[in-house]
Amino acid sequence: MWLLAPVSAVISIAVGTLLYVYVSKQDPGTEKMKDIASAIKEGADAFLKREFTILAYFVAVMAVALSIFIDPVMGPTYVFGAICSGLAGFFGMSVALKANVRTANASKKGLNSAFPIAFRGGAVMGLSVVGMALLGISVVYGITRNPEVVLGYSFGASAMALFAKAGGGIYTKTADIGADLVGKVEMDIPEDDPRNPAVIADNVGDNVGDVAGMGADLFDSYVASIVAGMILGRELGIEQVPLVFAGLGVLASVVGVVVVRVGKKGNPGKALNWGTYFTCIFFTILTFIATYLLKFNMGIWISTVVGLFAGVIIGITTDYYTSIDRPPAIKTAEASQTGAAINIITGFSYGLISMFPALLGIGLASAAAYFAAEAFGISGVYGVSMAAIGMLSIVGMIVAGDAYGPISDNAKGIAEQAGLPEEVIDVADRLDAAGNTSKAITKGFAIGAAGLTVISLLAAFQVLTNRMGFDLMRPEVLTGIFVGISVPPLFSALVMLGVSRNAFRMIEEVRRQFKEIPGLKEGKEGVKPDYARCVDIATTGALKELLPASVISIIITLAVGFIGGIDALGGFLGGSIMSGLIFALLMANAGGLWDNAKKYIEAGAYGGKGSDAHKAAVIGDTVGDPFKDTAGPSLNTLITVMSLVASVFAVLFVKYNLLALLSG
Amino acid sequence: MWLLAPVSAVISIAVGTLLYVYVSKQDPGTEKMKDIASAIKEGADAFLKREFTILAYFVAVMAVALSIFIDPVMGPTYVFGAICSGLAGFFGMSVALKANVRTANASKKGLNSAFPIAFRGGAVMGLSVVGMALLGISVVYGITRNPEVVLGYSFGASAMALFAKAGGGIYTKTADIGADLVGKVEMDIPEDDPRNPAVIADNVGDNVGDVAGMGADLFDSYVASIVAGMILGRELGIEQVPLVFAGLGVLASVVGVVVVRVGKKGNPGKALNWGTYFTCIFFTILTFIATYLLKFNMGIWISTVVGLFAGVIIGITTDYYTSIDRPPAIKTAEASQTGAAINIITGFSYGLISMFPALLGIGLASAAAYFAAEAFGISGVYGVSMAAIGMLSIVGMIVAGDAYGPISDNAKGIAEQAGLPEEVIDVADRLDAAGNTSKAITKGFAIGAAGLTVISLLAAFQVLTNRMGFDLMRPEVLTGIFVGISVPPLFSALVMLGVSRNAFRMIEEVRRQFKEIPGLKEGKEGVKPDYARCVDIATTGALKELLPASVISIIITLAVGFIGGIDALGGFLGGSIMSGLIFALLMANAGGLWDNAKKYIEAGAYGGKGSDAHKAAVIGDTVGDPFKDTAGPSLNTLITVMSLVASVFAVLFVKYNLLALLSG
Repeated sequence: MWLLAPVSAVISIAVGTLLYVYVSKQDPGTEKMKDIASAIKEGADAFLKREFTILAYFVAVMAVALSIFIDPVMGPTYVFGAICSGLAGFFGMSVALKANVRTANASKKGLNSAFPIAFRGGAVMGLSVVGMALLGISVVYGITRNPEVVLGYSFGASAMALFAKAGGGIYTKTADIGADLVGKVEMDIPEDDPRNPAVIADNVGDNVGDVAGMGADLFDSYVASIVAGMILGRELGIEQVPLVFAGLGVLASVVGVVVVRVGKKGNPGKALNWGTYFTCIFFTILTFIATYLLKFNMGIWISTVVGLFAGVIIGITTDYYTSIDRPPAIKTAEASQTGAAINIITGFSYGLISMFPALLGIGLASAAAYFAAEAFGISGVYGVSMAAIGMLSIVGMIVAGDAYGPISDNAKGIAEQAGLPEEVIDVADRLDAAGNTSKAITKGFAIGAAGLTVISLLAAFQVLTNRMGFDLMRPEVLTGIFVGISVPPLFSALVMLGVSRNAFRMIEEVRRQFKEIPGLKEGKEGVKPDYARCVDIATTGALKELLPASVISIIITLAVGFIGGIDALGGFLGGSIMSGLIFALLMANAGGLWDNAKKYIEAGAYGGKGSDAHKAAVIGDTVGDPFKDTAGPSLNTLITVMSLVASVFAVLFVKYNLLALLSG
Repeated sequence: MWLLAPVSAVISIAVGTLLYVYVSKQDPGTEKMKDIASAIKEGADAFLKREFTILAYFVAVMAVALSIFIDPVMGPTYVFGAICSGLAGFFGMSVALKANVRTANASKKGLNSAFPIAFRGGAVMGLSVVGMALLGISVVYGITRNPEVVLGYSFGASAMALFAKAGGGIYTKTADIGADLVGKVEMDIPEDDPRNPAVIADNVGDNVGDVAGMGADLFDSYVASIVAGMILGRELGIEQVPLVFAGLGVLASVVGVVVVRVGKKGNPGKALNWGTYFTCIFFTILTFIATYLLKFNMGIWISTVVGLFAGVIIGITTDYYTSIDRPPAIKTAEASQTGAAINIITGFSYGLISMFPALLGIGLASAAAYFAAEAFGISGVYGVSMAAIGMLSIVGMIVAGDAYGPISDNAKGIAEQAGLPEEVIDVADRLDAAGNTSKAITKGFAIGAAGLTVISLLAAFQVLTNRMGFDLMRPEVLTGIFVGISVPPLFSALVMLGVSRNAFRMIEEVRRQFKEIPGLKEGKEGVKPDYARCVDIATTGALKELLPASVISIIITLAVGFIGGIDALGGFLGGSIMSGLIFALLMANAGGLWDNAKKYIEAGAYGGKGSDAHKAAVIGDTVGDPFKDTAGPSLNTLITVMSLVASVFAVLFVKYNLLALLSG
C-alpha cells in the first residue's frame, strides 16, 4: 500500500507539468514587459547558479564525511536529497518567473483572467515540492527499506533548505531595504519605479526568497516529518503508514489546487482560503476511508486530524495578530503618532503576545495527539509524529497559496515599471493584497508544522539512541538546554547583521548611481540605472553572510554531541526547539504587524502617506523586514537541520564523547 | 552555628544605620537644591504610599488564601516577608533621597568628597536588603525550624518584588520617555531642565524604579536561593549550611562596603569594581575557613565558589556587550548613519548574540556545581543550589554599587536644575558615568543569579512533590513547557504596552503644559510647570498597568497546576525559566547597548549631537528604555514568583488536578 506514495507523487508532478504548460502558453505582453521579466529572470538565475555552486562544495564535503563516518550509503542519499529539493525549487521558480509577467499582462483583462495564472504558477511550486519530496523518499525507501537511510535524504534536503531560505532571505531584504531607503525615503520616488537601480534586485528577491526559499523550507519540514514518523513507526511495525497518509495528502492537494477559482466579481483572498479549507476536509475524509479500509488504528487517524486542524488554527491566530483590520495592527498604527520608538515598542509587544495562542496550540495539539494515540493503545509519541504529518499533509496547497504571493507582487512591480494604465495596476494590487494574508497564514502554519516536526525528530533521536527520556533535572540535559536555547537567537542575529551589512553596501551603491548617472533621478528618456550591479551586490553578499551562521550552528551541534554526549544533545535540541519557535513566531508576527500598521496609515489613517506617523511606521516596517522575511522563517529550517545533524551523527556521539571519557 | 546568620544580619543593619547617619549629616546645599530634593521626595513617597496600599489588599487576600488552603502559619509568614522587603526598600530609598542632594552639593568640593556620599547612600540600601532578608529568614526559621514555612516568607517577599520592580519600572520609563520625547526632541531643551514638567517625575522614577525596585528584586532572589538550598539540604541533614554561608556573605559585603574609597585623582568606576572583587575574594576565604573548621563537605564550598565566579563572569560579558567603548556599541552607533531601522536591527542582533556567553555561563556553572558536589559524594542538585547562594552571597555589595547609580544620576539632575556651575555638573556627570557600568554588570549578575535560583527552586519543587524528574518527552511536561515559555514574553509585552500607554498620557500632559502655561518654554522668571500633575500620571498609570500582567501570570501558573498537575507544572516552570532568561538578557543588553551607542555619538562620533545619526540613535535608545528598565529586569522577579507559587501550592495540585481526574 505504501506505493500510493510514489503514485501520488508522480500524479502531482504530472499535474504540475500541465499547469506549467498552461502558464507558459499565456501572453507575456509587450516588449518592455518581456525585457523587465527577462532582467528578473537573469538575476534570479545568476543567484541560483552561485548558490548551487557553493552548496555543491558544502554538500560534497558533508557527503564524503557521512560515507566515511556513518555509512557508505548515506553520502549518495544525502546528495540525492539536496538534488531533489533543488530541482523542486528550480522548477517552481522557473514557472514563477514566467507567471509574473503573464499575470501582469492578463490584469489588463481583469481579475478573473489574472488570478488563475498567478495561482497556477504558485501551484506548480506546491505540487513539485510535494511531488519531488515524496518521490525521492519512495525511491530511497524502495531500494533500502530502511527509514534510517531516508534520514540521510532528509538531511540533504535540509542543507538545501538552509541555503535557500537563509540565503534567499538575506538577498531579498538587502534589495528591499536598499530600494526603499534610498528610493522611497531619500529620493521620494514611488515603489517599483524603473529609475530605482535596486528595483530589479528587489523583484528577484521576491522569487529567490519567497518562492524558492519557502519551497525548500517546507520541502525540508515535510520530508523530516515523514522520516520521523517512519522511524517511530518501525518499532511498532507500521513504518509505512506515514507514506500512505502523505500520499493521500498529495492527492488532496492536487484536487484542491484544481478546484480553486475566483468568480467575475470574486475575492481572490477568499478563493485561496476556500482552497485550503477544501483540501483539509478532503484529506480528512480520504484518510478516514483509508484508515477504515486498511484497518489502521483509529488513534492514528485522530492524531493526524488533530495536527491538521491545529495547523489551521495557528494560521488563523497568526492572521489575527498581523491582519490590517484587527486591533494589534490598528493600535500599532495609532502608536506611530508618538514616533517610531513607540511604534516599535507596541508592535514588538504584540509580537510577544502573539506567541501565546500559537505555542498553546502546539502544546495542546501534541498532548491531544499523544493521548488520542494512547487511548487507542498505540504509542503516544507516534501519535505526535502523525500530528506533524497531518499538519504537513496539505503542504502542496499551502505552498501553492504562498508562492502566489510573490508572483502577484512581481506582477504588480512589472506593471508599474512597464507603465501600464492605472486600472491594470489596480487589479495587480488587489491580487497582491490577497497574497499578503495567505502569506501570513502560511508562516504561522510553517512554524507550527516545524514545531511538531522537530518534536517528532527529537522522539526519533530518542529511539535511535535508546534513551528512556530527557530529564530536565539531569545536569547534562539542563546544560544542553541552556546552550540550545542560545543557538537560534545567535543564528538569527548573524543573519540579520548580514542583512544590515549588505543593505549598507546596497544603499551606498544606489546613492552612488543617483549621484553619478546624469538624468537618472529626473527620469530622462533613455537613461537607465545599472541594475546588474545591484543584483550582483545582493547575490555576493547574501552567500557571504549566510555561510558563517550556518556553519557555526552545525559546529555547535556537533560540539555538544562530542563533549556532552546524547543526554546533553537531547537537552540541546529541546532548548533549540523552544527558542527557535519563540523567535520564529515573534519575528514573523511582529514583522507582519509593522508592515500592516504602515499600510493602515497609507490607507489614510492618522494623516496618511507622508505624515509623521507614516514616517514612524516606515521605520517599524523596515525593522520588521529582516524579522519576517530573513531571520524568522530561517529558524524553522535551522531547528530541523540541527535535529537532523543530531540524529544522523548519533552513532558517533554514543561512541565518542568527552563526558563519558572523563567519567570513565 | 546558623545563628551566624541573624548576628551578621544585625551587624549589617547596624552598619547601614551608621552610614545613614553619616549621609544625613552632610550639607544638603542651597534652598533651591533642598526644594528640588523635597519635591522628588514627595513624589517618591506618594508613589510608595499608593503602591503599598494596593499591595496591602493583594497581600491580605493572598495571606487569607494561604492560611485557609495551605497552612494557618503560612498567611502571617507571607505578610512578614512582604513587610520585611518593603521596609528594606523604604529604608534604602529614604537614604537615597537624602544622598542625592548631598552628593550634588559635595560635588562643589570635588569627586572625592562627593563619591563617598553617593556610594554610602547606596550601601545603606545594600546592607538593609541583606540585613532585613537574613534577619527575617532567621526569625521564621528560629520559630518554626521548618524550611517549608520559610518558603511562605520568600513568597511574601516576591509579591513585594513584583510590585516594586514592575510598578517602579513602568513609572520610571513613563516619566523618562515623557520627559525626553517632548522636552529634548520636540522643545529642544536640555535633559533635566527645570522647565520640563516631567523632570521631577523622571527623578522620582530613578528612585522608585532603580533603587527600590532593584532592591526588592534582589531581596527576592536572595531569600529564594537560601530557602531552596534549605529545602534541598533538609534531605541531607544540612539545612543550616545556606544560613551559615549567607551570614558570611553579609559579613564580606559589610567589610567590602567599608573598604571602597576613591583617591584624589581616582576613578569611581574602578573603586566600585574593586569593591566587588574584594568582597568576592574575602567571601571565598571566609567560606573556605568555615568549611574547614565546621567540617562541611568540601564539595559544598567548591559549588558555592563556582556560582560566585560565574556571576562575576556573566557580569563582565554583559559589560562587553553594552559598554560604550566596545565593538557592539560602536557598530550600532555606526549603523545609525543609515537610519533608525538599521540602528535597531543592529542593536537587537547584538542583544541576541549577548545571550550566548551568559547562558553558556549559567549552564556550565550549574553543571560544574553539580559534578563538583557529586565528586565529593553530596547531592549534585544541592550543589547547584549552593552555586545560586554563592552567586547571591555578595548581594549586599552588588546592591550598594547599583543604588549608587540612580543616586549620582539624581545628583546630576539636581545640580542641573539648581543651576550649579559647569564644573560641579561635570563632577556629578563623572560620578553618573561610573554608575552606568556598574549598573550593567549588576543586571547581568542579577539575571545569572535569578537563573540559578529558579533552577534550585525547580529542584526544591521536585523534592517537595516527590518527583523523580521532569522528562521532556512526557506529554504533560512538554505541553507545560510550551505554555511556560510563552508566559514571560506575555508578561513583558503587557508591561511594555503599559509603558507606552502611560507614556502617551504623559506626553499629552507635558505638551499641554508647554502650550497652556505662558512663558514656560521661554523660561520666564517665576513661571513653574505643574510637576505634581506629571508625578500623579506616572503613579496612577504605573499601578494600573502593572496589576493585569501580575495577576495573569499568577493565574496561568495556578491554572496549569490545577489542570495538568505536577508534571505539567514542572515543565511549565522549566519553560518559563528558559524564556524568562532569554528575554531578560536580550532586553537588558540590547537596551544598554542602544543607550551607549547614542552616548557614543553624543561624544562626537558620526556627526555628534543633532546629526541624523544621533536622531536615529535616540529612537533606538527610546525603544531600549522599557526593554532595559521595565520589562527585562521584571522578568527575574516574574520567574521567581511563578516558581514560588508552584512550590507553595504544590500540595493542592497533587490533590486536585483535572488530568488526574480524567485519567481516573
